[in-house]
Amino acid sequence: MNTMLSVNAGEAGLAVTFASGETVSYPWLWLKDNAPSSFHPQTEERIFDLTSVEPSLQPLRVEATGNGVAITWSNDTAEDLLPAGFFDAHRPGRARDDPADIAPRLWDGSLRFEAVPRRAAPALMKDDDALLAWLKATAAFGLSIVDGLDDDPEAGRLVAERIAFLRQTNFGTIFEVVSMPNPNNLAYTPVALPLHTDLANQEVPPGYQFLHCVSNGAEGGGSTFADGFAVAAALKDEDPEAYRLLCEVEIPFRFHDADYDIRGRFPVIVTDSRGEVTELRFNAHLVDVIDLPSEKAVSFYAAYRKLMGMIRSERFMIAYRLKAGEMAVFDNRRVLHGRQAFNPNTGRRHLRGCYVDRGEFLSRIRVLSR
Amino acid sequence: MNTMLSVNAGEAGLAVTFASGETVSYPWLWLKDNAPSSFHPQTEERIFDLTSVEPSLQPLRVEATGNGVAITWSNDTAEDLLPAGFFDAHRPGRARDDPADIAPRLWDGSLRFEAVPRRAAPALMKDDDALLAWLKATAAFGLSIVDGLDDDPEAGRLVAERIAFLRQTNFGTIFEVVSMPNPNNLAYTPVALPLHTDLANQEVPPGYQFLHCVSNGAEGGGSTFADGFAVAAALKDEDPEAYRLLCEVEIPFRFHDADYDIRGRFPVIVTDSRGEVTELRFNAHLVDVIDLPSEKAVSFYAAYRKLMGMIRSERFMIAYRLKAGEMAVFDNRRVLHGRQAFNPNTGRRHLRGCYVDRGEFLSRIRVLSR
Repeated sequence: MNTMLSVNAGEAGLAVTFASGETVSYPWLWLKDNAPSSFHPQTEERIFDLTSVEPSLQPLRVEATGNGVAITWSNDTAEDLLPAGFFDAHRPGRARDDPADIAPRLWDGSLRFEAVPRRAAPALMKDDDALLAWLKATAAFGLSIVDGLDDDPEAGRLVAERIAFLRQTNFGTIFEVVSMPNPNNLAYTPVALPLHTDLANQEVPPGYQFLHCVSNGAEGGGSTFADGFAVAAALKDEDPEAYRLLCEVEIPFRFHDADYDIRGRFPVIVTDSRGEVTELRFNAHLVDVIDLPSEKAVSFYAAYRKLMGMIRSERFMIAYRLKAGEMAVFDNRRVLHGRQAFNPNTGRRHLRGCYVDRGEFLSRIRVLSR
Repeated sequence: MNTMLSVNAGEAGLAVTFASGETVSYPWLWLKDNAPSSFHPQTEERIFDLTSVEPSLQPLRVEATGNGVAITWSNDTAEDLLPAGFFDAHRPGRARDDPADIAPRLWDGSLRFEAVPRRAAPALMKDDDALLAWLKATAAFGLSIVDGLDDDPEAGRLVAERIAFLRQTNFGTIFEVVSMPNPNNLAYTPVALPLHTDLANQEVPPGYQFLHCVSNGAEGGGSTFADGFAVAAALKDEDPEAYRLLCEVEIPFRFHDADYDIRGRFPVIVTDSRGEVTELRFNAHLVDVIDLPSEKAVSFYAAYRKLMGMIRSERFMIAYRLKAGEMAVFDNRRVLHGRQAFNPNTGRRHLRGCYVDRGEFLSRIRVLSR
């Protein structure tokens, strides 16, 4: 740890000099608002009321102690003890350490499928360390395989629920991917499904998807995947203007049936305030009639078609035929998934799916990392 | 309807002249991608594959018909019939009509509570027209009261489920707001709760909240509300720099307990790509230690404290003491809610809450509007 050498109370705030030689200034109002005593000891929710003091707040008395600083704000409040570790951990501009801040490890079509993280379900069900290691690997890779699932349609869901509750959508909580006699959705036919992300029309599409292979006795029906973050990075590098358009131009998405009509406008590539890609919304089925002005539509189509071509190319796509008792787990907002055609007359193919959102998934990593 | 006078096939696209005198150009690739025949007749999902044609696609033959245009793209595809209404409804740059696009009606502390939309539960439970009118009023106002609920803790939930399934969170699907002997959250005490939005730490905080008053026999315990969109508009007008900071500066939010640790970085005022306010994230309890550089922290605090003062002022806040059998319904991402202190020794106060997200709420408006 970076120990404190000295503290100096000035008008604007407390200047702390660390053993590293660095001097850092902590504004008084910040100190009051973020001091440990401003948070509830159990819930750690903030209980201090910012409007109860003046913005120009100054302390009555500041004292360096053996292992921190004691601040008395006024005659009618108790002394606030701020440990040395607090100043180091929360120096201005330094974000709280986050065990769930896991850098993506990008991959492309050259990946051998044996390199995809693979874990046995029994260990995940009973061992929290195994669970944590799997979650971290899945977060980094965006994709993993769980095998050794019981011969029980519920087995995949039980693994997902080791993480958190399931995300409900207009398709329910659990969905069955089988070929049906009278399909109302392409997923319920035996035809090939191009790579896509699910529910791109929703304000927040489902985070992690769990596709449990209950049976796969039909010829064909291999699963396909592509790392959308890797494709976006390549596009940014090779055609920055197309990348920019796909990050900036919002297009309409829509799903509607007898019970729902869920719409939204989003860009195809979603970036955060630092410009990092956080999500791809890629599902041609769910793109509504494009409503851009004609010139913008022409340039958008050129960029979108280029991305589409890259996603489907061997350069980025990998394929794997799931076996009964295996489950593919992937970040639906990063990794695109699809399916090769199969012959329903040669046997039964049955996948069972559900989702756990990113918020709960990352929360589980933090809690298991304690 | 704006009828078509003439069509003219050019190299870039089809020029359509409307009776209004306007001539609009539809690019060929756009026409192919968005023609009704490119969507599945039942699911209305797009089935056309953009990569199956060249971007420079041109039609073989174009023919004006009595009520539209017939386009033949190639010798091996059937003629595509585009009705006249399609060209008017989808002229470039015109978004699809949306019955759920309801302009907010802003309100402030001068609002008399009798002006808040109020509906009787029995009508909402059995009459779809009454349900639709209530949803629209609630969407416009951000707040409504449902009364006449059965003396049954489940009665509020049943009204919410008339809209859609409930949003599950780390607090469950239904939560009970009562004073408990050993509270683990301020909501479960009898103290006053300042105005706030729920779960501001989540990627998408819950949309509409339903607070069903099962009993309110204690002295005090009035509910408070403020229209966050109205406050944001006033701040933008009166202190544009503070408004800008609250829209742009992202601060850390966090909730954690034994089972969860859910974090995110967001601005306090969330705007869309057009600069319209879509959401306030306002919950001091859930703001983590502020990790901004010192200078930025000082200017952020000034803006944040100003917003806080406005929200709590009589200028914006309204109060109403819910009676047993009443339910407050509000857009948790727009309308802040709070509670006055109550005396638990004078009787029982029990509210029961749940959420339906914006996506499902707006979907229900669209489906009921068909």
